[in-house]
Amino acid sequence: MKKIVRYGIVGASLDSFIGAVHTVGAGFDGLACLSAGCFSRNKEKNQESGEFYQIDPNRVYSDYQEMAEKEGAREDKIDFVTISTPNNAHYEIAKAFLENGISVLCEKPLCFEISEAEHLKSLVEEKDLLFCVNYSYSGNNLVKEARELVQSGHIGDIINVNAEYLQEYLVDDIGKGDQTITKLSSWRKNPEIAGISNCVGDIGSHIENTVSYITGLRLKRVAAKLDYFGQPLDLNANILVEFENGAHGVFCSSQVCVGYRNGLVVRIFGTEGSIEWVQEEPNTLIVAKKGQPVQIYHRGMAYLSDVAQKINRLPTGHPEGLYVAFANIYKNWIGAILKKANGEELSKEDRDFPSIEDGIEGVKFIHACVKSSEKDAAWVNL
Amino acid sequence: MKKIVRYGIVGASLDSFIGAVHTVGAGFDGLACLSAGCFSRNKEKNQESGEFYQIDPNRVYSDYQEMAEKEGAREDKIDFVTISTPNNAHYEIAKAFLENGISVLCEKPLCFEISEAEHLKSLVEEKDLLFCVNYSYSGNNLVKEARELVQSGHIGDIINVNAEYLQEYLVDDIGKGDQTITKLSSWRKNPEIAGISNCVGDIGSHIENTVSYITGLRLKRVAAKLDYFGQPLDLNANILVEFENGAHGVFCSSQVCVGYRNGLVVRIFGTEGSIEWVQEEPNTLIVAKKGQPVQIYHRGMAYLSDVAQKINRLPTGHPEGLYVAFANIYKNWIGAILKKANGEELSKEDRDFPSIEDGIEGVKFIHACVKSSEKDAAWVNL
Amino acid sequence: MKKIVRYGIVGASLDSFIGAVHTVGAGFDGLACLSAGCFSRNKEKNQESGEFYQIDPNRVYSDYQEMAEKEGAREDKIDFVTISTPNNAHYEIAKAFLENGISVLCEKPLCFEISEAEHLKSLVEEKDLLFCVNYSYSGNNLVKEARELVQSGHIGDIINVNAEYLQEYLVDDIGKGDQTITKLSSWRKNPEIAGISNCVGDIGSHIENTVSYITGLRLKRVAAKLDYFGQPLDLNANILVEFENGAHGVFCSSQVCVGYRNGLVVRIFGTEGSIEWVQEEPNTLIVAKKGQPVQIYHRGMAYLSDVAQKINRLPTGHPEGLYVAFANIYKNWIGAILKKANGEELSKEDRDFPSIEDGIEGVKFIHACVKSSEKDAAWVNL
Amino acid sequence: MKKIVRYGIVGASLDSFIGAVHTVGAGFDGLACLSAGCFSRNKEKNQESGEFYQIDPNRVYSDYQEMAEKEGAREDKIDFVTISTPNNAHYEIAKAFLENGISVLCEKPLCFEISEAEHLKSLVEEKDLLFCVNYSYSGNNLVKEARELVQSGHIGDIINVNAEYLQEYLVDDIGKGDQTITKLSSWRKNPEIAGISNCVGDIGSHIENTVSYITGLRLKRVAAKLDYFGQPLDLNANILVEFENGAHGVFCSSQVCVGYRNGLVVRIFGTEGSIEWVQEEPNTLIVAKKGQPVQIYHRGMAYLSDVAQKINRLPTGHPEGLYVAFANIYKNWIGAILKKANGEELSKEDRDFPSIEDGIEGVKFIHACVKSSEKDAAWVNL
Repeated sequence: MKKIVRYGIVGASLDSFIGAVHTVGAGFDGLACLSAGCFSRNKEKNQESGEFYQIDPNRVYSDYQEMAEKEGAREDKIDFVTISTPNNAHYEIAKAFLENGISVLCEKPLCFEISEAEHLKSLVEEKDLLFCVNYSYSGNNLVKEARELVQSGHIGDIINVNAEYLQEYLVDDIGKGDQTITKLSSWRKNPEIAGISNCVGDIGSHIENTVSYITGLRLKRVAAKLDYFGQPLDLNANILVEFENGAHGVFCSSQVCVGYRNGLVVRIFGTEGSIEWVQEEPNTLIVAKKGQPVQIYHRGMAYLSDVAQKINRLPTGHPEGLYVAFANIYKNWIGAILKKANGEELSKEDRDFPSIEDGIEGVKFIHACVKSSEKDAAWVNL
Repeated sequence: MKKIVRYGIVGASLDSFIGAVHTVGAGFDGLACLSAGCFSRNKEKNQESGEFYQIDPNRVYSDYQEMAEKEGAREDKIDFVTISTPNNAHYEIAKAFLENGISVLCEKPLCFEISEAEHLKSLVEEKDLLFCVNYSYSGNNLVKEARELVQSGHIGDIINVNAEYLQEYLVDDIGKGDQTITKLSSWRKNPEIAGISNCVGDIGSHIENTVSYITGLRLKRVAAKLDYFGQPLDLNANILVEFENGAHGVFCSSQVCVGYRNGLVVRIFGTEGSIEWVQEEPNTLIVAKKGQPVQIYHRGMAYLSDVAQKINRLPTGHPEGLYVAFANIYKNWIGAILKKANGEELSKEDRDFPSIEDGIEGVKFIHACVKSSEKDAAWVNL
Repeated sequence: MKKIVRYGIVGASLDSFIGAVHTVGAGFDGLACLSAGCFSRNKEKNQESGEFYQIDPNRVYSDYQEMAEKEGAREDKIDFVTISTPNNAHYEIAKAFLENGISVLCEKPLCFEISEAEHLKSLVEEKDLLFCVNYSYSGNNLVKEARELVQSGHIGDIINVNAEYLQEYLVDDIGKGDQTITKLSSWRKNPEIAGISNCVGDIGSHIENTVSYITGLRLKRVAAKLDYFGQPLDLNANILVEFENGAHGVFCSSQVCVGYRNGLVVRIFGTEGSIEWVQEEPNTLIVAKKGQPVQIYHRGMAYLSDVAQKINRLPTGHPEGLYVAFANIYKNWIGAILKKANGEELSKEDRDFPSIEDGIEGVKFIHACVKSSEKDAAWVNL
Repeated sequence: MKKIVRYGIVGASLDSFIGAVHTVGAGFDGLACLSAGCFSRNKEKNQESGEFYQIDPNRVYSDYQEMAEKEGAREDKIDFVTISTPNNAHYEIAKAFLENGISVLCEKPLCFEISEAEHLKSLVEEKDLLFCVNYSYSGNNLVKEARELVQSGHIGDIINVNAEYLQEYLVDDIGKGDQTITKLSSWRKNPEIAGISNCVGDIGSHIENTVSYITGLRLKRVAAKLDYFGQPLDLNANILVEFENGAHGVFCSSQVCVGYRNGLVVRIFGTEGSIEWVQEEPNTLIVAKKGQPVQIYHRGMAYLSDVAQKINRLPTGHPEGLYVAFANIYKNWIGAILKKANGEELSKEDRDFPSIEDGIEGVKFIHACVKSSEKDAAWVNL
């Protein structure tokens, strides 16, 4: 029986912050061995990363296509590949690995076009593989608790949603024109690499997914006003949303809100109560029930649901952070890979990681927001 | 030289919570003497209130029209009247007093129709009187500090506004039909008394005014989605806004958000920083400057502006609350009444109380939101 | 039947912050009329205050002894006097009014010596009068809720207490010698006026009283370390405490803790739960029960006790602050004065204001702390 | 040149929460390879752990003494051993490895007796080895920032310290007698295994170290009151402290404070400002400067010191938690091991991990507290 998986990475060279989060997260439980990689188009960086991770030099590839083909052909091939590149490469890379029979965990947003996203889905089904889109915040313990509470009816029928993701790191780019496509933000603001949206694509999509994950509701339509401030892509977005159950709400995402670093806040309001989760304080969850004092749930406490207990790592009061959210995504993902490899059926619970359907929804959301804003915030269906 | 004013009240019988806030607020500085009143249409209640306030029985009126005429004709007439009745009576009462030469402080929203609001304005000008619309939150010390900071350029050009006013007290009315027009909410949900809006009219209008007060910006247009949940008037509203300077944002007002009592929160984002004020914690102001640690300003500290110093009452750390906000409104209002009575010119600073223009803007805002929602959240200009 | 009281004031001239809080607080409910005063030893200030409060000039006294005697002899004499002077005058003034048959509400600390305090108590009993020592924080709505919760057993047996009162306003005096006896702090740091303690006397005593009020427990002994930093009186105190039930804890009071304005925080720990109240955020109370999520109680909610409901003024979410705490003290105090005047028996509930026994306890606490610190923090019984 | 270290573990079998934190933390940066272990006295568990960590079966030892000797004799011997066992074993195990020429990272508290601690120190010097006592909170990014701020004079001279570490997990043991020595708390409440103190030893020692780390000050003496509530070891402690510079303060540690999970809070007050760090929200630091608004520092921002920048892992706003604190301890520790192995001199900065001197101080602190409490909170020198 298979107990440990082999995996490969495309992207995530040593100077990538998110790359290190992937390798730490994947390795957290000792269930995954990094066995192949195509870390960088820069030959030296690629080599260096391979050495750092102590990978067989024959499995350090300079080309993802070659990697997909060669790995796909090996006896001891990787069980999955993590794609941690800029957005524009996701689709081609994911396609290559799927076509070669290798499951994929891909960074979000999944790809540029809805048609591409759906093609990847059809490939997954055709090849009977697994696919995860790394909406990492869904890995947080208390996001899972929120999902349990909301979907078990604890707060009644959902009637309003208020969610935001505010950052400040691009405020200096306001009014500066194209020459600001540099540094950290570089590719995210370049339409050729990032796609049709910067702010909605990078962080607005996290709002959409986190809300969807917690509520189980899909969006029906959006009315979005994106602000570009003279830049090629959006830096700020205020969005009216309507869910398939008729509930309304707002999503606000911004990279120009001074005083906010990485402020994802999700508030779900129901007829019986509400929940609020704040990404920068992930170890608490605010839960309100009609007519009762507001409650603060703390991760690791015995009153939490089985789902939260099961994914818990540290005793209450010892903060779990982003690495653990990644580790939790990987734990479930690797668990599913192993079950499948061992011929077991996957239950709904086993599939508790962001799916290709979530990825498709994300691409639709981005397109709908951009289209709506082009029409001066007219409603656009997803 | 006149040092103390006489005033009257229409509404505010002893069982009215807001009535007591008016009388305490007006009397806070020992500058106003309650001298006449028409407290209730209920004769006994009216009498009882008059006795409680130790008012000359000849000046306890059963009819506001009679009060306006008789007071207007007295030598020792009241210097102003406070109108604290349900919305539908504001216009007629205000008109009566203005026509009889008496200045007016009126609860918000000013009146039902924009034309009425403008008529009141023309009366104010014609009769050379003063008029205040009681957007009480602008009386808070740190709201004034926020205004100073924003309007002095401390946070740069305004690029985004995110404001909300969330309450929970009507959540039980969802789906219950018209029979819920009872109790506290009673008249606020009755179109004949409250006007075309409940939630936007009662609390959304406070968002509009507080943002306008702090930023000095007027709204250009709104795209609003109001939720009625089977009730005659709105209980929930999500609103995209555009200001005259082109900045966008959202205003969310709700009376069905469990976990929120009286949650007015205003966040103004500029190119150089941001400010955040939370009504339930009015003695602090969060101020962020680009590239610097987030700062918490506390009322009463020496680093605050002259405006905040001047209106300050208690040493820092001793909480000032709603009564003080009212007292501050009245302090400036009575100051203006006295200056005018003494033949002095009023400076801009002397006029630091919510004006009839603010009242008109509020009525326009309510109308625009309702109209927009009727058009499925199409943009409507104010 | 008597419905309104007359009262007088000693101290509280117009430039006194706490004076204005007294007059606003006493007048809040329209149940008290300020009818006499001896506001200042400065003749002009005294006159001016009398005029401001519109007091009969015959009842504006330049001398408290004269006031006590003349008022005591009037038909329409004041029902009580408020003493709001520096500490050194409390005893003589209180004695004078008691001896002349007038009930007393006195600022804390009650007086210098324990014997004086006990003499006042014997006078109160002898003359069958009422006495209140103005530990104003006990007037807060949620302090009363905390008392209800703790004394009804909600948190079990008390096993630990952690309370603090931190300010920063004297930090500049560190190491500056006696010449700093100026300004705001002036008399508080002058042993002749303030007594044997500055910091413990002024704010440490509030810790002692608030804890005692909430828990119903008296202190058995203290082990205190006071810091003087070269000043004549203490600026900082760290105190181990032991209660009569055997529970331990710490009280920390300081006027040199930068970052703290008026930080009274009381945390009571029991075998079943805990409560935490923070003076600067008086409208919330943190309540924890073993094995359950932490709860945030909000003033004005229906789940609060009858005691909290009864003293409530504003709807939930509209902040009540220091003026309301004073108003609540006065409400109960005046209620007791009226009942007594009308020949009614006072129930325990009617006596819900800080008593002379509380005042005595406060003086004992100050003495015990100073004595303990002189003995290098040896235990000293109260 | 050596780039990666080999290390071994004593303790930390798979069911140990802290064990997993050690292996994740040590492996975080890819600089350490777990090469030997003596995980459990239970043979199966020991085997299982060895297999899980893919360790050469010859290097999975059933006896620490054997491990120390055999590893000490290997060419490819481990560069250090991590000791993660209950307290009573620390001394003998540490001694065995030091004697066999192997550096040690040991859990806190270091050992039972001061003489043992000093013997270990002499062994470290004699053998020219390195020693780290795992006071893990000093690994937090913003604890290092606090240290930089305080030791660079940002808050002036230290005049007061207020620190606490409150937990609730033993509240049920109150009054239950010895039979409660079970479960999680089991060995911690057993004097034979835990030593002379439970609460002060386990968490009070973290207060002592974190304060010492941030301030650079050692304690001179303590006056401690420990509460046992019928248990063999203390569950609650309130401690007056005096530092070598004359400053006073309180340390409160408790395992019976309902509502607190793992509440280490350190507040350092100086003549110019203060800092506050809260373990459960480790990504923020509250900094106050005299006369200025209170500031909230956020990890990962450019305004932080070089030390904080250097140890930073995640972009601001992405929470780092306990695993990262461990990883940071290990990063510096492994860095020092490597430098030493490569014949380089260790700078003060290279030695930024908790030292054997810190460990000795911790043992002294525990002894002083217990002794003081036995003398009814008399002062006891460290």
